[in-house]
Amino acid sequence: MAIAASERHRVVIVGGGFGGLYAAKSLGRAPVDVTLIDKRNFHLFQPLLYQVATGAVSPADISSPLRAILARNKNTQVLMDEVLDVDPEQQQVVTKHGSIPYDTLIVATGVSHHYFGNDHWKATAPGLKTVEDALEMRRRIFYAFESAEKETDPERRRAWLTFVIVGAGPTGVELAGAIAELAYATLKEDFRSIDTSETHILLLEGMDRVLPPYPPELSAEAEASLRKLGVEIQTKTLVTNIVDNVVTTQQGDTIRQISARTILWAAGVKASKLGQVLAERTGAELDRVGRVVVAPDLSLPMQPNIFVVGDLANFAHQGGKPLPGVAPVAMQQGEYVARLIQARLKGKTLPSFTYTHIGSLAVIGQNQAVADLGFTKMSGPLAWLVWVFAHIFYLIEFDNKLIVMVQWAWSYFTRNRGARLITGEANLSAFEARLKGDRQEREPPAVKV
Amino acid sequence: MAIAASERHRVVIVGGGFGGLYAAKSLGRAPVDVTLIDKRNFHLFQPLLYQVATGAVSPADISSPLRAILARNKNTQVLMDEVLDVDPEQQQVVTKHGSIPYDTLIVATGVSHHYFGNDHWKATAPGLKTVEDALEMRRRIFYAFESAEKETDPERRRAWLTFVIVGAGPTGVELAGAIAELAYATLKEDFRSIDTSETHILLLEGMDRVLPPYPPELSAEAEASLRKLGVEIQTKTLVTNIVDNVVTTQQGDTIRQISARTILWAAGVKASKLGQVLAERTGAELDRVGRVVVAPDLSLPMQPNIFVVGDLANFAHQGGKPLPGVAPVAMQQGEYVARLIQARLKGKTLPSFTYTHIGSLAVIGQNQAVADLGFTKMSGPLAWLVWVFAHIFYLIEFDNKLIVMVQWAWSYFTRNRGARLITGEANLSAFEARLKGDRQEREPPAVKV
Repeated sequence: MAIAASERHRVVIVGGGFGGLYAAKSLGRAPVDVTLIDKRNFHLFQPLLYQVATGAVSPADISSPLRAILARNKNTQVLMDEVLDVDPEQQQVVTKHGSIPYDTLIVATGVSHHYFGNDHWKATAPGLKTVEDALEMRRRIFYAFESAEKETDPERRRAWLTFVIVGAGPTGVELAGAIAELAYATLKEDFRSIDTSETHILLLEGMDRVLPPYPPELSAEAEASLRKLGVEIQTKTLVTNIVDNVVTTQQGDTIRQISARTILWAAGVKASKLGQVLAERTGAELDRVGRVVVAPDLSLPMQPNIFVVGDLANFAHQGGKPLPGVAPVAMQQGEYVARLIQARLKGKTLPSFTYTHIGSLAVIGQNQAVADLGFTKMSGPLAWLVWVFAHIFYLIEFDNKLIVMVQWAWSYFTRNRGARLITGEANLSAFEARLKGDRQEREPPAVKV
Repeated sequence: MAIAASERHRVVIVGGGFGGLYAAKSLGRAPVDVTLIDKRNFHLFQPLLYQVATGAVSPADISSPLRAILARNKNTQVLMDEVLDVDPEQQQVVTKHGSIPYDTLIVATGVSHHYFGNDHWKATAPGLKTVEDALEMRRRIFYAFESAEKETDPERRRAWLTFVIVGAGPTGVELAGAIAELAYATLKEDFRSIDTSETHILLLEGMDRVLPPYPPELSAEAEASLRKLGVEIQTKTLVTNIVDNVVTTQQGDTIRQISARTILWAAGVKASKLGQVLAERTGAELDRVGRVVVAPDLSLPMQPNIFVVGDLANFAHQGGKPLPGVAPVAMQQGEYVARLIQARLKGKTLPSFTYTHIGSLAVIGQNQAVADLGFTKMSGPLAWLVWVFAHIFYLIEFDNKLIVMVQWAWSYFTRNRGARLITGEANLSAFEARLKGDRQEREPPAVKV
């Protein structure tokens, strides 16, 4: 579709994650007016969110104010607002504060947790998508050790020292590894009544191996490293219930009940609400988890000026499986749409989007990671170095790169993690009352292991 | 009072602020068992809390886990717990989780905000004592600019760009200076619909000058620097009402109403609840704001083994005015009591506590501070350097020193502030609803200036 260049073309981008931000950055010098709308005032570097959850870095260290990133793009306005509806006929988005017209719309609102129909598990088993999620996990992890120190009943103490992580994708693996390092190294000298090396960390996965999307040999390496760190891994295992801080699992015919005061959810995502809105307004097709099925140029069928990029898009790569919801896919898609808009302004078009695989990485602990770089696979200290530098490199702002490097160097040599604060409630009582509500104050059932 | 050294002497310290922490640190190698109880799991470096509120550093950068600080003191146990009562006869404190016996008790629970009988102002005008307070201020400050960018009505926009700070002690002065730098430097290029240099910052003080406890010439210097930065200062001014985001002030016979969406409270403190408990249980005297009047050795009259140190103590220095509630007083008092306990264990005692004045400092902005070092007074860039190094020096842990230095150096050269996130509610809607509740959705009244 060619665009008449007679008037200034208006691009509205919804979502300031990797997809939306990279689209906006690429349009910084294009002859268009850009409006980037996000509910938050910052871009979050989600790949390091587990480090906030485990007290290694602070939220601001991996976040950048969207305005600061885009301040020099004088054609770009950032609005902190929430898009409620899209009107393809009037070509406008409806926000909480008004309507904003567009000539081209880019939707990049990502995904949230999916509890597979068990949304009531959320209170007991929080997921990890937002800064608030990470602080909630951090609070629970460190509060568990504090409570164990005060607990005199051995069964209850054991439940406080049991951590169950549901889902062994990159986030689950990284959480399990980080908690193991906390319990077996960082916190070892800090307590008097408990021995933190008695901490039990259990990583559950429904598929037959950890890191299911990765090459099998890397899964095996990751599994070996995690076991060496002290993590118990159970694959082919489904969570069938979570109630009163007891996780019920099923592995084949074996039912197991695990008393754990800290349960972290790293399994399954579902598309954000705007996917549903787009389906209703444009007839776009949604996949099983609500992602929008996009055309080869990432636009919607019959709606050439509406694009969906990033985790919210279901893009069948060269006719195969949909691309995974990872940062590099979102970045490349955002940049592709920005280029396509500029090509159209010149009356041209672009070939279909193709994804250039730059690698899959997961970190397990100090000096331990696995990396699939396409041309080669690796694990161990070298993969860990690749992981460190890739993450520093992609952190958006220079001050964040600097601060994260300082924190990592510090904790590399000292094993210390400085950001292990229990915060977030005006007073602790409110948090304790909430935890109490979850468990309905009674003796924990026996642990069958 | 001599202490029998035949059994291991138990010292219980309540509160991990400057007073309690320095007492605990000083007892690290003493032949006593120490239990430090705090509601939080970290020590907070309160003098830099305003930097969290204004997006310069993150909470973890100025906090240290109490366990990590005291990990090497094998005679010391840290408990995250809340002390509800003190029983001087049984010599034990009652916490939410049980009773803990002591031979010597040190109470160092500090102070909280005081709204002079107007506690309902708190929702509209938050104070600055905890990490959560600072994040609430940060949220409001940056949300105000975001809202102004979306607001089309000029009166309402002006209310979003008006910041009122109540109280011109060090905290109020530092907040006003930091917000001025934000509005007039850091954020200048970030917005498209508003000009942040139109921001109106108003600092209110009931006394006749800013920084009332400081020498008058430093108050004058601070006032001149603040005005140069763009802050409006009103002294001899009382706040008589805060309702619907309108602050009513009285200066002599002049009543003024200021429409402001961001009102920050930096006036007045009152003693924490444990002061009242001590008064009831021991007959100790409380002063006007609830602080405990202590004997020359910081113990309670008739209770030689109960000490109160830090902001909670009213200690008449050499018969004069009570010492101010600042960190150096608390540190010295904590260390004094630790020495006194050790002396008593040897059957000795110590002369009365005396405070060694090491200086009063307040920072106004980049290169601007005032310092009263006793032997000399100074202001300007040199005072600012003293301020920077004093604060780096007293930050408890080396990693915090390092990270705060990196952040300060970065923002010194770029004027950037990386930690300006709007966080803390699971979604923005809840925060907006709360703000809306405050203002009762109606036209702001006319501003009389």
